[in-house]
Amino acid sequence: MAKGRLTFIGLGLYDEKDISSKGLEEIKKCDKVYAEFYTAKLTGADTKKIGKRIGKPIEVLSRQETEKGDKILESAMKKNVVFLTCGDPMTATTHIDLRLRAKDKEIETRIIHGSSIATAVPGLLGLQNYKFGRTTTLAFPEKEYFPTSPYQIIKANKLMGLHTLVLLDIQADKERYMTANQGIELLLEMEKKLTESVFTQDSIICVVARAGSLSPTVMANTIGFLKDKDFGPPLHTLVVPGNLHFMEVEALVKLAGLPGELKLGKKIQKL
Amino acid sequence: MAKGRLTFIGLGLYDEKDISSKGLEEIKKCDKVYAEFYTAKLTGADTKKIGKRIGKPIEVLSRQETEKGDKILESAMKKNVVFLTCGDPMTATTHIDLRLRAKDKEIETRIIHGSSIATAVPGLLGLQNYKFGRTTTLAFPEKEYFPTSPYQIIKANKLMGLHTLVLLDIQADKERYMTANQGIELLLEMEKKLTESVFTQDSIICVVARAGSLSPTVMANTIGFLKDKDFGPPLHTLVVPGNLHFMEVEALVKLAGLPGELKLGKKIQKL
Repeated sequence: MAKGRLTFIGLGLYDEKDISSKGLEEIKKCDKVYAEFYTAKLTGADTKKIGKRIGKPIEVLSRQETEKGDKILESAMKKNVVFLTCGDPMTATTHIDLRLRAKDKEIETRIIHGSSIATAVPGLLGLQNYKFGRTTTLAFPEKEYFPTSPYQIIKANKLMGLHTLVLLDIQADKERYMTANQGIELLLEMEKKLTESVFTQDSIICVVARAGSLSPTVMANTIGFLKDKDFGPPLHTLVVPGNLHFMEVEALVKLAGLPGELKLGKKIQKL
Repeated sequence: MAKGRLTFIGLGLYDEKDISSKGLEEIKKCDKVYAEFYTAKLTGADTKKIGKRIGKPIEVLSRQETEKGDKILESAMKKNVVFLTCGDPMTATTHIDLRLRAKDKEIETRIIHGSSIATAVPGLLGLQNYKFGRTTTLAFPEKEYFPTSPYQIIKANKLMGLHTLVLLDIQADKERYMTANQGIELLLEMEKKLTESVFTQDSIICVVARAGSLSPTVMANTIGFLKDKDFGPPLHTLVVPGNLHFMEVEALVKLAGLPGELKLGKKIQKL
């Protein structure tokens, strides 16, 4: 058994105040704090602010350093090391991989959880968690690379009456965060390509921006209405609703500005 | 607009230390703290311990008082009120309902998120979030009431190769928490009734107990092996895996004690 320890701590959703007391206590006791902000980013705080909050200097690792992992693992062989990540730490494959490599070196690992977009976004919209199907992510298209699997996942969920949480690409190292508008645009492009009538201009879609802040933007309306709206700074997330329970409709009307007249039409239930 | 405010604060997963700094700051500023512990419970801390941590007295509402909501809403008309709940606050329908009624009374509402079983459990097992289908919950069976919808949900997810997060019934007001063993037993009873070959004694199942504590129990093995094991105090959660990516297999072996020889057989991939 190595003498050190590696504790993954989730910073939660938005700023330096979303970390738990348990996380802060562990940081107080540790010898060294690493962090990575390329798989996700707290858009409400920079590293300096987080460092001030936790009272210790933070060494931010690049994508390469995180994926390689040798720096952090070597350190955790001997020392009590903390690794800060956004959201709930184990939602990124890279972090699971790092934990497995720590296990191989017989380094004790611990997880201190944080709040996550996966429950925050449904909650802010008043949609019921157990009515969500598989989550999907929209990636920035590259030359020759335009994956349409999100469209298929949304379609499959819809056919079962389920909502879809649609995460939007984060390339924090390039400061590129996909906006809800870009995401909607991509969904319409997929529709154009695959023509399976999953999306029209009249389809209802939900947008949440800056979940975890004290004043997130939460909107539900037609794609036609929302596609050119300004939702403010990142991060943005989309939800494509499936069949809506009447209380969910009420929630979208009252919490997300869904127009009452749509509510009465057959659009929502039929989507 | 009412002069007061109602802030829902998620206590997170396990004990009094899982609340965020943001939540603690809001509590400091508020006039009154309510809580409910019947939809879920922090099993690592009692109300006294939580009260000590937050530095204010807590009025715990019963199921009836929470569902009725008049006490908390009346208070929030004039005062700055905090409502504490376990996990991430808006995952319970009752809380969404309460928020909608606050909106009707023009009471400003806010959400301060907490860590949730929905991301913690997949993360502790090293399973990938985007490979989960719809979540289901096993309820304590009552006379004449034995719903088999969880079986159908798990089956549908499996057919798509997806994992299922299986939440277990919490009747905190009666201090009844379904154990993983009881959950597995129910799944086998459903199998006996519906005979669609979703579960055999050789099916792989995953158990997580006390997610959010610093030493959770995390196990993956066959149903036959796990059904009589002791997983310690609540809360327990199950995951029924779908198709496993090789890194997920590695994670279940290294983090959850899945035997290596099963890993090499066709059982896992075929499940």
